Amino acid sequence: MAPPLFSKISIFGVGLIGGSFALALKKAGVVGKVVGVGRSAASLARAKELGIVDIASTSVEEAVQGADLILLAAPVAQTEAILRSIEPWLQPGTVVTDAGSTKTDVVEAARAALGTKIAQFVPGHPIAGREQNGPDAAIVDLYIGKKTVITPLRENAEADVARVAQAWELCGAIIHKLTPEEHDRVFASVSHLPHLLAYALVDDVARKPHADLLFQYAASGFRDFTRIAGSSPEMWRDISLANQLALLGELDAYMAQLVQLRGLLAERNGKAIEAVYANAQRARQNWIKTIEAAEQQNKQGGD
Amino acid sequence: MAPPLFSKISIFGVGLIGGSFALALKKAGVVGKVVGVGRSAASLARAKELGIVDIASTSVEEAVQGADLILLAAPVAQTEAILRSIEPWLQPGTVVTDAGSTKTDVVEAARAALGTKIAQFVPGHPIAGREQNGPDAAIVDLYIGKKTVITPLRENAEADVARVAQAWELCGAIIHKLTPEEHDRVFASVSHLPHLLAYALVDDVARKPHADLLFQYAASGFRDFTRIAGSSPEMWRDISLANQLALLGELDAYMAQLVQLRGLLAERNGKAIEAVYANAQRARQNWIKTIEAAEQQNKQGGD
Repeated sequence: MAPPLFSKISIFGVGLIGGSFALALKKAGVVGKVVGVGRSAASLARAKELGIVDIASTSVEEAVQGADLILLAAPVAQTEAILRSIEPWLQPGTVVTDAGSTKTDVVEAARAALGTKIAQFVPGHPIAGREQNGPDAAIVDLYIGKKTVITPLRENAEADVARVAQAWELCGAIIHKLTPEEHDRVFASVSHLPHLLAYALVDDVARKPHADLLFQYAASGFRDFTRIAGSSPEMWRDISLANQLALLGELDAYMAQLVQLRGLLAERNGKAIEAVYANAQRARQNWIKTIEAAEQQNKQGGD
Repeated sequence: MAPPLFSKISIFGVGLIGGSFALALKKAGVVGKVVGVGRSAASLARAKELGIVDIASTSVEEAVQGADLILLAAPVAQTEAILRSIEPWLQPGTVVTDAGSTKTDVVEAARAALGTKIAQFVPGHPIAGREQNGPDAAIVDLYIGKKTVITPLRENAEADVARVAQAWELCGAIIHKLTPEEHDRVFASVSHLPHLLAYALVDDVARKPHADLLFQYAASGFRDFTRIAGSSPEMWRDISLANQLALLGELDAYMAQLVQLRGLLAERNGKAIEAVYANAQRARQNWIKTIEAAEQQNKQGGD
């Protein structure tokens, strides 16, 4: 039998993201052993119980030594501290990657923590999620057909970038490449801002004196609009702060848009209001068509 | 054989809402004949082809005479014109109701159009929908387990309110009663504002120079958040204008909330940001639990 592609993978943070990565690579039969490391002993024990990790370790040294690949899948605010704990044990031949939802801050943290070993860090971001968190939320097919964005550094060896890409491809993901800055501007717009807006709306409704009456009549539109407000507050606080500048820019543009729309509503300008709504509907329909065509192609490719 | 509960029901607007009402009552076996009336000859013909209506009529007189119940299910801006066309033929014994998403403006329009016959008008609003419109979108089970809000007028006879309630109950809906003003404040908050916000976000993204790149990375969170921006721009223009004052009030409260959250983000106040996010998550989780418990109860009741 040929040795597995990855003899040892270590995962810092065995929740939804790290756990699903481990499950997918195990299913693909490309990994010898998976070592899990984490802050919570209970989560680690649970991950072992679920077969997500083979070894639940409390020793960073043990986890890092001899690993082909290390994935950071802990909350993004912990990135620098984890990388600092890894650095002393990091040997040539080990590639470190992450799954953080922001990239410029992660790269900055990695440069500070890893110093001259920065070439071994290949930043990444799998575009997949669920509201649930923790090892019990991990599923083997989370990444199938989803994008993983890699934002390579100028220091990275091509072979290391390829190794990270290969691991995600073996999870079923489609690889895209952006610069860290492009990445953060894009996700501030299509992910971080919508999360902030959904949280803001639910908090706004919940703090009204007649909140109970309001929630009683909230229906499927409200349910879908606010689905992302069910996400982890800690994680999204970290993302909001990590991508602060791009998020502020997007929020300002959106607030300007609301001010304009408020003006149209106040002056009862039905024609202009309809034009905004119709442009949005059209753009969304075109986008959905593109997604559906891509999904169709993925399905055909997978057969 | 006993005569059907409703010997003749006439529906103005045979799209998703009116069509689903007709299909449900036909399935319940409580209606002799359904007459459809509408602006579009093609929609009417299609509704007849689909078995939604028995008679596609272009004569208001024919539709109104001898009807037990008349449902207005056309765009809300047409309410007054339709009621004016109905009034000359409206005989005692016929109850008129509507399915408009706003109520104070509908009541105002009804008072203006029906004059002394206002007691025959019982305003209503079924809380159900899909993005699709037109007779082809109509489905027999649209209202099952959904709320229908009735906002009775002081002039309404109890028996007439009960008749409208009974028709919706036969469609599977659960009847709630509010005043028209309460109704409009509630729906401005949990429905009309989220629609405006979703349209505003998609329009904002679509008008950016790099919109194509942005849409390429929009994922399931964006998809759900903006689902309601796939709704009819004409219908939501009308609703926005019809409920203008309540909607402006809710929009102002939301914009104040965004200004506050922007301040917290600018000063990197992670603790306060997390508190807003956590309050939203908790409120939403409680709400979802309540919905799920109610759905469970409905299922058991239906068995």
